[in-house]
Amino acid sequence: MERKILLHLSFLGTAYCGYQIQPNGITVQQKLNEATKALFGFDCDIVGCSRTDSGVHANHFCATVSEKGKNAIATTVPIDRLPLAMAQFLPEDIAVFDAEYVDSSFHPRYDVKYKEYVYRIWNRRERNPFLSDRSWHYPKTVGDDGLAQMKEAAKHFVGTQDFATYMAADSKVSDTVRTIYKAEVNKEGDLIEFRVSADGFLYNMVRILTGTLIAVAEHKILPEEIERITASKDRKQAGITVPAHGLFLDKVVY
Amino acid sequence: MERKILLHLSFLGTAYCGYQIQPNGITVQQKLNEATKALFGFDCDIVGCSRTDSGVHANHFCATVSEKGKNAIATTVPIDRLPLAMAQFLPEDIAVFDAEYVDSSFHPRYDVKYKEYVYRIWNRRERNPFLSDRSWHYPKTVGDDGLAQMKEAAKHFVGTQDFATYMAADSKVSDTVRTIYKAEVNKEGDLIEFRVSADGFLYNMVRILTGTLIAVAEHKILPEEIERITASKDRKQAGITVPAHGLFLDKVVY
Repeated sequence: MERKILLHLSFLGTAYCGYQIQPNGITVQQKLNEATKALFGFDCDIVGCSRTDSGVHANHFCATVSEKGKNAIATTVPIDRLPLAMAQFLPEDIAVFDAEYVDSSFHPRYDVKYKEYVYRIWNRRERNPFLSDRSWHYPKTVGDDGLAQMKEAAKHFVGTQDFATYMAADSKVSDTVRTIYKAEVNKEGDLIEFRVSADGFLYNMVRILTGTLIAVAEHKILPEEIERITASKDRKQAGITVPAHGLFLDKVVY
Repeated sequence: MERKILLHLSFLGTAYCGYQIQPNGITVQQKLNEATKALFGFDCDIVGCSRTDSGVHANHFCATVSEKGKNAIATTVPIDRLPLAMAQFLPEDIAVFDAEYVDSSFHPRYDVKYKEYVYRIWNRRERNPFLSDRSWHYPKTVGDDGLAQMKEAAKHFVGTQDFATYMAADSKVSDTVRTIYKAEVNKEGDLIEFRVSADGFLYNMVRILTGTLIAVAEHKILPEEIERITASKDRKQAGITVPAHGLFLDKVVY
């Protein structure tokens, strides 16, 4: 049977210019390329479940590994030893926590059922030294009323809709219909989390949805206006694109 | 009234050679010195509540600020604006979250009623990229039995006792009696936390107590042996000194 390896990994995105290999700057994919070459002794094709932007983190990210040009891999390394074997060749901020064999026909991006992202907001006037690179510092207090409005607004994101409003203006994607299964806002202590799962995401979509929720917290947008704003397909109607370093890919389900 | 300023701060210790100023390496105290000089326009004496080792973190740390050589300070900066004013002159990994005036007779180290430390252990075979510099990676699984033994052993640390056993061998302190008020072990997911509060701590004491609990988890020491080990005043009877980067000063109470 022709088979590939599917890696489950997590990474702190701070030091990387995103997942995908690019000419300038170090990426997670490049580190996976180097580690697999060192471990297996041959060049590999690494295909990720998602492109992530510079500074974005992943609690769960998936990538397939196959021998370069072959769409399959043969190795004597036992699959359950792979996470620890990879650890020897990966930096501290990338960790493979599980590995499994999948059929060669498997595609880590196209076969995704849904992905879940979390956007974290540190909502206190004073900053948090432990979260400076892993949350967005939004210093204006979001009170109970603002939080209730955000929760209400988030509900309007759920469903199969055209999300063109919430896509980066320079994106070239033409099919902008996606299905959001879950969109929830929660606050614990001074940390606000926006959790959203969907069958797919447009470029900058989670960051623009979050920025729109912030506009709701600031009473610039009312929850009942969300449907009209979504229908407008006008990027300018939505909120700001919040910074990348508050964003975490949290779950990938096939 | 002669008064000083008491700062409440938190810091990520990764980049620092501990709190206390020293000839080689950057320290938290040095950063506070630079920031207060930039803010107030004169040199200050900064006195911390504790010396912390290189790599140790603080969720809560206290330090007094007075004009150099005067044991008092006069400034037009309103005390409630001080945290944000300091933020301009401090790096991202140090944050003042509160400030208050205290009498000039106040001493941030001698006046402490109790301090509470937390030691965090990442207990999974695979490492965690988000905790690599803020927990100790102990890969051998501590099961329910081991955890129960650790909890039981920790109870024997509580009380007014001579803790010489749990002091770094090269420490020169002669009065080694301290009162531990709380010593608790908890596990949530793959993270084990040892929380300990006391009126004072000997050099490396929390790290050696934690190392002793790890020896208990490994069944090298039984919980009922703790009293004998404490009474021995023999450093070699205790467990290892676990690494600094899992240690957090969590609370300072006056």
